Amino acid sequence: MKIPVGILGAGMVGQQYMALLKNHPWFEVRYIAASPRSAGKKFSEAVAGRCHFGGIAEVFGNIIVADANDVSKAAAASKAGDCAFVFCGLEMPNDELKILEASYAAAGIPVISNASAHRWTADVPVVVAEVNHSHLDIIPAQRKAHGWDKGFITVKPNCSIQSYTTPVYALMQAGYEVKRLIVTTLQAVSGAGYPGVPSLDIIDNIVPYIGGEEEKSETEPLKILGSIENGVFKKADQPKISAHCNRVPVTDGHTACVSIEFGAQKPSIAEIKKIWTEFRSLPQELELPMAPVRPIIVRDETDRPQPRKDRDADKGMAVTVGRIRPCNVFDIRFTGLSHNTIRGAAGGGVLNAELLKHKGYLG
Amino acid sequence: MKIPVGILGAGMVGQQYMALLKNHPWFEVRYIAASPRSAGKKFSEAVAGRCHFGGIAEVFGNIIVADANDVSKAAAASKAGDCAFVFCGLEMPNDELKILEASYAAAGIPVISNASAHRWTADVPVVVAEVNHSHLDIIPAQRKAHGWDKGFITVKPNCSIQSYTTPVYALMQAGYEVKRLIVTTLQAVSGAGYPGVPSLDIIDNIVPYIGGEEEKSETEPLKILGSIENGVFKKADQPKISAHCNRVPVTDGHTACVSIEFGAQKPSIAEIKKIWTEFRSLPQELELPMAPVRPIIVRDETDRPQPRKDRDADKGMAVTVGRIRPCNVFDIRFTGLSHNTIRGAAGGGVLNAELLKHKGYLG
Amino acid sequence: MKIPVGILGAGMVGQQYMALLKNHPWFEVRYIAASPRSAGKKFSEAVAGRCHFGGIAEVFGNIIVADANDVSKAAAASKAGDCAFVFCGLEMPNDELKILEASYAAAGIPVISNASAHRWTADVPVVVAEVNHSHLDIIPAQRKAHGWDKGFITVKPNCSIQSYTTPVYALMQAGYEVKRLIVTTLQAVSGAGYPGVPSLDIIDNIVPYIGGEEEKSETEPLKILGSIENGVFKKADQPKISAHCNRVPVTDGHTACVSIEFGAQKPSIAEIKKIWTEFRSLPQELELPMAPVRPIIVRDETDRPQPRKDRDADKGMAVTVGRIRPCNVFDIRFTGLSHNTIRGAAGGGVLNAELLKHKGYLG
Amino acid sequence: MKIPVGILGAGMVGQQYMALLKNHPWFEVRYIAASPRSAGKKFSEAVAGRCHFGGIAEVFGNIIVADANDVSKAAAASKAGDCAFVFCGLEMPNDELKILEASYAAAGIPVISNASAHRWTADVPVVVAEVNHSHLDIIPAQRKAHGWDKGFITVKPNCSIQSYTTPVYALMQAGYEVKRLIVTTLQAVSGAGYPGVPSLDIIDNIVPYIGGEEEKSETEPLKILGSIENGVFKKADQPKISAHCNRVPVTDGHTACVSIEFGAQKPSIAEIKKIWTEFRSLPQELELPMAPVRPIIVRDETDRPQPRKDRDADKGMAVTVGRIRPCNVFDIRFTGLSHNTIRGAAGGGVLNAELLKHKGYLG
Repeated sequence: MKIPVGILGAGMVGQQYMALLKNHPWFEVRYIAASPRSAGKKFSEAVAGRCHFGGIAEVFGNIIVADANDVSKAAAASKAGDCAFVFCGLEMPNDELKILEASYAAAGIPVISNASAHRWTADVPVVVAEVNHSHLDIIPAQRKAHGWDKGFITVKPNCSIQSYTTPVYALMQAGYEVKRLIVTTLQAVSGAGYPGVPSLDIIDNIVPYIGGEEEKSETEPLKILGSIENGVFKKADQPKISAHCNRVPVTDGHTACVSIEFGAQKPSIAEIKKIWTEFRSLPQELELPMAPVRPIIVRDETDRPQPRKDRDADKGMAVTVGRIRPCNVFDIRFTGLSHNTIRGAAGGGVLNAELLKHKGYLG
Repeated sequence: MKIPVGILGAGMVGQQYMALLKNHPWFEVRYIAASPRSAGKKFSEAVAGRCHFGGIAEVFGNIIVADANDVSKAAAASKAGDCAFVFCGLEMPNDELKILEASYAAAGIPVISNASAHRWTADVPVVVAEVNHSHLDIIPAQRKAHGWDKGFITVKPNCSIQSYTTPVYALMQAGYEVKRLIVTTLQAVSGAGYPGVPSLDIIDNIVPYIGGEEEKSETEPLKILGSIENGVFKKADQPKISAHCNRVPVTDGHTACVSIEFGAQKPSIAEIKKIWTEFRSLPQELELPMAPVRPIIVRDETDRPQPRKDRDADKGMAVTVGRIRPCNVFDIRFTGLSHNTIRGAAGGGVLNAELLKHKGYLG
Repeated sequence: MKIPVGILGAGMVGQQYMALLKNHPWFEVRYIAASPRSAGKKFSEAVAGRCHFGGIAEVFGNIIVADANDVSKAAAASKAGDCAFVFCGLEMPNDELKILEASYAAAGIPVISNASAHRWTADVPVVVAEVNHSHLDIIPAQRKAHGWDKGFITVKPNCSIQSYTTPVYALMQAGYEVKRLIVTTLQAVSGAGYPGVPSLDIIDNIVPYIGGEEEKSETEPLKILGSIENGVFKKADQPKISAHCNRVPVTDGHTACVSIEFGAQKPSIAEIKKIWTEFRSLPQELELPMAPVRPIIVRDETDRPQPRKDRDADKGMAVTVGRIRPCNVFDIRFTGLSHNTIRGAAGGGVLNAELLKHKGYLG
Repeated sequence: MKIPVGILGAGMVGQQYMALLKNHPWFEVRYIAASPRSAGKKFSEAVAGRCHFGGIAEVFGNIIVADANDVSKAAAASKAGDCAFVFCGLEMPNDELKILEASYAAAGIPVISNASAHRWTADVPVVVAEVNHSHLDIIPAQRKAHGWDKGFITVKPNCSIQSYTTPVYALMQAGYEVKRLIVTTLQAVSGAGYPGVPSLDIIDNIVPYIGGEEEKSETEPLKILGSIENGVFKKADQPKISAHCNRVPVTDGHTACVSIEFGAQKPSIAEIKKIWTEFRSLPQELELPMAPVRPIIVRDETDRPQPRKDRDADKGMAVTVGRIRPCNVFDIRFTGLSHNTIRGAAGGGVLNAELLKHKGYLG
């Protein structure tokens, strides 16, 4: 018996969730809700002409799309055994979405969200499964504070940080203080959703700006690396991060060029490679279905990682790093790459759901 | 009466020179020399099927290409009044080219080179016209040391540094110590010449490595910002530079994301914009034909500079900067952009030639 | 004294008009009208963040944008000597635009339109200046039929047909019957306006469909090649055209692969090249400012025309053809290319305006 | 016990074969031979820096590469049970390769070739498995004519024709005469191998010419659709084909826009869809491992097929067709798409090998 799952959103993110869940061993999509203009239609009709993933219309096409604003529909589906929790990929203003996601939680429906609305809510965990799985244990406190019974809210961080946050964490966990990072990202157009970036803006071009992305890149890792105190999150003090975020003519895969300054203890290049190659975390120990076997893949070629060659590594869930070398200004530098819509979005969400199920929060 | 000019090389760089010199008010291309396999052919035949610039085959097509290895041919052309000096865009191993360029100089033919062969020769100036035009005054010492009469060698730096070296210099000249830079470049494929980067490597992709480029980016600015002592160049001590160089799917225009650490005195963002906007140098004072009116163009839009929109600013000779903002780790950061085959290659060479003519070194 | 011109539309097409008219010897933009949400703002503010052409914000930035739906504003501007006629680049439903353009004409303001609204209105000429300039002489009949005094409407055809219509016409004019054409177009993304084609649809991809484009490609040439009978246009009977229209990852420049079947008389390849090379028409005789010197440029290289290398030929106004060779199924085949937003849109409109001025319809 | 296989060539095609054979149920790569400069090295070293497929260096990296010109090496491997037959993906002049492939056959080693060298050899079959599998039965006659014992040569056709040859054949097989085709192809850069098309030629550009491709496109289908008479192939008389071949900025997947003229009997659009949807051939009946379940996939969306969305359909082995509609000039038109390096190259070769094994020619 698989756990019945709802998807909020029929755009790129919602569809990516469906694509990843088509054959999932634990979860089964039984409920889809989206904007009012899609509501009432069969999913196949709602996405006609903007279906981005092969096979999902065939598998989920007959599900009647509900109105995502109508939480009572989801509650009824939950009662009927069709929606134990939801993945949220809705695109709406943060202030509205904040309220809506809380309504789902209040209605007893856990929300695993891709949106940024609740990332800075004091008791909502922002989770990268291999880094801060322990943050999920704030859920009892969160439930209690809000008077929620079974519902809760967890979110995943911005896609732009996932190409370096896990590698940086692995070094910290190995005992090295990471004081400062200067990061330049080269981000794929799929990060902007659909229709997203106009082709006239990006063919033969670079756009050196993505609204809000640098702020998220500089602050979200500090929550992820932070601690729980009195039922709320406390940001870590470091590393200090400076991010330059660029949009590049690449479909999928965010590349990050990173310079790191360590504390007094500085690992050698060889040690760093060893730490990253051997890094494993709870999702790997549990052999969760969506977990990459090796969360960090170290490549020794001079010219890797590259988006087209490395983004799909281990189902799109591994972070590939390369060009690990001394930095002329800080201590070391490297290039990291991850699949922004899988590792950085829906795949990360599914992995978090697997963790939540393991920890017993899903039913 | 225009000064007769020779071009060494019939590839991308040589052709770019011809394109820029088609209607030059001071210089006239009258001599072309290239590899042995082109020698003896009309220029139009030599470049059939690989002519990258409109109009040059029409204007220069009937010139019979000489063998660039045969310096006596150039010497004869010089004597005949057809080649007062040469622009060198040859592609050959640095050790061979070093000797060849010196042979031209020894034969009385000044060499203004795009190649990297002589960039670290102790008495050869690496010149960005607006930054270190004074370095050209090493020429008498250079001539004397080598026993050269009229010949000499000057070179231009790597294209990767031109999107930030002039802005950084302008800040230093305004009295601010620049201690450290971390730079990530997003470099156009034309920087690799022709055929250069295979399309299979760059469509929907990023290549996070360009052989030798990071080393050049980190060291050449120090020679440019250095001083002349006892007839040779002495590198500046700072700024310390760390460069991450990437190849991106853009035809022309190198983008650089730069974080700067100043000394104790730190300019405000407003001051920096003022310094850059008002920056002028000798080429502007002299109103040299190839000189941009404003060497640095500051754009205030949130999303500029962009290669396709800004590379051609002021004949491709201006550096466009934008996104000037505080850096979370260092002091400030910005994005710079310049046209790599014009400002960063042939256009920079022509501007240097104009300076040399003004200073009386060309005849 | 230049003729004062109005531009309807502040999107890509309207901006392209402004870019072409910045330094026009006869026309001067003094009136800009656009959608209600732009109305009342300075042009520079109205296009902030979506200004596609360098320099136009600087030149026209202070013009206060009017509401294009408010024809009385334009009439007042006309009376004040600021708007002798308008170029229309509005994007709105055809039925609404049809009425709006007629209102301008009724108000005494000639409309030279880029839109498709009136292309099949019986007495509105669809003009490619070098092909059917004589069609402009329907204007007196058009005015009379509608009771318009000084106003009238002329339009330009779809951009997709401009890479082959003039070459085909030149052959017909030389006495060769052209019976059938099979055409495949590879169309640039700028043809879809801005934001237009999402980058996710076109990076590393081809879209083999453009809504309505094939129908336009197959029928509009027949009106252009048709005749005037009793004050309305009568379509030509041939050539029969079959069009396959594709969107490709190119910014500007529509490529067309064309196979032609002639009547009994069949020109040789050499004759075709001669006819095309020597083709001149009224705009060339009059040396109109926007007219290309040679409307058709024949290239003999095996691999031309190419969008990036040939689209800007003669200010973007020439059609470049190449690969003229026998067809294995029909008689001959060739590849044609033209700049879709210049020759195929605003540039064609300006050239038509120049013709109209010459013919005395604009004042 | 798997059949041991040799691969001739370590470039793109050879590597693509290895990628497809990594987990093949019948075949196992045990021998690799390539150019003299790779010979003697481990495969992983021979392809360092130009390995295009993930995992092949890991699986085949320790195989010592032989010199492909040294047939005796292959003969020894054959004797040792390491090379029952070879897939040939060598790139060398056709006249040399013709002799070399014949030498392998003479040495008792069947050659299944991707090269064009033997495509017009009178007794060598050019095979698209679903179309002319019966042509493989020329092998006994071929062996006899050349005095070959176990060796033979079969080839696969040019990649450019595979997006329409099977659909056209399916219509002929259903009883409809296909008289003429006009085809325009939009071909991916991987068709040119590696390094292949320079990025400067294809970013923001189209190249309307591919050397030799149109001739191959027009003639090879006639051999494939031909018959065997007296031990040699006789070309079919029709369809007459005219091909316009273009290179486009797409990594993989050749698109073809096709107009078809039938004989007197003309199928309806509905019949065509039915014929294509139901088309099955010997590889499907035999359920060969590499055979697509449905050789032709009909899509009803208005804007399909598209390279990025459809090239990987059914392991990259299906041809996807769409936009089936009446032609304004001929009878019908459609767009076809296939993966040029899988269906059109190595995948087609593997499928042919599977057929050959089934027919008993490989052991």
